[in-house]
Amino acid sequence: MLDSRFIAFEAVVREGSFEQAARSLSLTQSAVSQRIRQLESDLGQVLLMRTKPVRPTPAGRRLLPYLSQMRLLQTEADRALQSGGGSGAMRLSVGVNADSFATWFWPAVAPVVAQEGVVLDCVLDDQDHTHALLASGEVLGCVSTRREPMRGCVALRLGVMRYRCIGSEAFRRRHFPRGLSRSALGRAPAIVFGRHDDMHEAFLLHHFGLDKGQFPYHVVPSSEGFVAVASAGLGYGFIPELQVATQLADGGLIDLAPDKHEDVTLFWHHWEVQSPVMTKLCGAIVEGAGKVLPR
Amino acid sequence: MLDSRFIAFEAVVREGSFEQAARSLSLTQSAVSQRIRQLESDLGQVLLMRTKPVRPTPAGRRLLPYLSQMRLLQTEADRALQSGGGSGAMRLSVGVNADSFATWFWPAVAPVVAQEGVVLDCVLDDQDHTHALLASGEVLGCVSTRREPMRGCVALRLGVMRYRCIGSEAFRRRHFPRGLSRSALGRAPAIVFGRHDDMHEAFLLHHFGLDKGQFPYHVVPSSEGFVAVASAGLGYGFIPELQVATQLADGGLIDLAPDKHEDVTLFWHHWEVQSPVMTKLCGAIVEGAGKVLPR
Repeated sequence: MLDSRFIAFEAVVREGSFEQAARSLSLTQSAVSQRIRQLESDLGQVLLMRTKPVRPTPAGRRLLPYLSQMRLLQTEADRALQSGGGSGAMRLSVGVNADSFATWFWPAVAPVVAQEGVVLDCVLDDQDHTHALLASGEVLGCVSTRREPMRGCVALRLGVMRYRCIGSEAFRRRHFPRGLSRSALGRAPAIVFGRHDDMHEAFLLHHFGLDKGQFPYHVVPSSEGFVAVASAGLGYGFIPELQVATQLADGGLIDLAPDKHEDVTLFWHHWEVQSPVMTKLCGAIVEGAGKVLPR
Repeated sequence: MLDSRFIAFEAVVREGSFEQAARSLSLTQSAVSQRIRQLESDLGQVLLMRTKPVRPTPAGRRLLPYLSQMRLLQTEADRALQSGGGSGAMRLSVGVNADSFATWFWPAVAPVVAQEGVVLDCVLDDQDHTHALLASGEVLGCVSTRREPMRGCVALRLGVMRYRCIGSEAFRRRHFPRGLSRSALGRAPAIVFGRHDDMHEAFLLHHFGLDKGQFPYHVVPSSEGFVAVASAGLGYGFIPELQVATQLADGGLIDLAPDKHEDVTLFWHHWEVQSPVMTKLCGAIVEGAGKVLPR
């Protein structure tokens, strides 16, 4: 269904060279070059920078997401025509932040994944960066903190992820016997996700005037790792309420600052034009998030 | 303790430009340039490529790990002199594969982390790639599949991580009512960690002659996500026995191919010359892994 010139363009971007692209398409290199030149001439835009590796120009990059969309529609059409699957299961790529992935995401999508027999290609990234994955066409939809949809896209409000300052009771007794204070926080090991974890930094700076570099911290790039390190009494950190509801109820973990919390509003972004299956998946995501995240 | 010329070199590498380095050190740009030139002249090696951003040459890269080591010794010496902590907790950076991180790693290091008051800077990477983090000086030690130590380093055998082909009972009934077969495996959704998950691919190719592209798969870049997706009955995949011992015992998950498994031998690599605290951490890692991983 996809024009052979677009297929050649996609292959060059994927492979990073005309030579490799030709090999992957079982064409000669000159046939690939010719198709690209025709496409560029028809569109009146240069699509590729002839560098090593070959990269798309800004115009080429703008084209890529549409090609991903077309691929998906093509797969869906093929499936409808074949009427019955085979190993060519439909792949839907999604960008998700780690905390959503560790909590509500899979329960939300499970029914659609099971019923439709699709497979998911999940890319985990920071909730402030997932959006770039959508813009580049790497994913068809993403969980993001961004409110405004980009051109050609839709943004739906998922709800509020509430983060609380969590640690174990033993940790509190050892480090905060008289509650949170600037001096105690300057010595108690925090848990942060990456070297730039804005939430923890902002909390200590805003409420206690502690700058980065004035408190010790473990770097733990895993949502479940956060809970494990906090449960072991080795640190404290900001964890979604949702993720530790059980531990908060049974006292395995406690809220160290019950009068303070940090809220992050999440949105689901997807392309306006999308396939019927992707529409179902988006519906399930919005519905599933809505069940557990306060609006 | 560290020579000002080395401090200038480190700053340029970290910041990627002489200008930024000068700013971060509160020096003039010409002072930074002069120190680097002196250092290069004394060592008889060019250490930096004057590109944008500035990058270390191969010789510069070989120097970096030694500077990290010296930094660590300096912190430890400072601590010994101050005799009593403050917020300058010692940072130990380690490279760990996701499956170790999700299972034995934190229980193993917990006692040393608590007693010594150190904080860990964890970098999660593929067990075949963690080694590059050690070579670049980004981490002081790493879990790796590599057996041979690099020059200046030590490799200690941690034990064997055994992977089993795991799914839920409902998944088995739906997809493998008559056991694993080429045609059933060509339709059942697998779970792989990344687009290149060698273990699953090798298993299907070796035992069933199924090439990549001949089976559907979810991409789930999270160890805990694997267990969640398998438990929800949405896919099957290779999971460390250790990680699902409870679920295998209570029937929440089952071994789909009890007569087959994949073994991965893990090693702990660290620099030969290291600080006393790092020596304790290494001891705890080897001991902790030894308790749960068969030799």
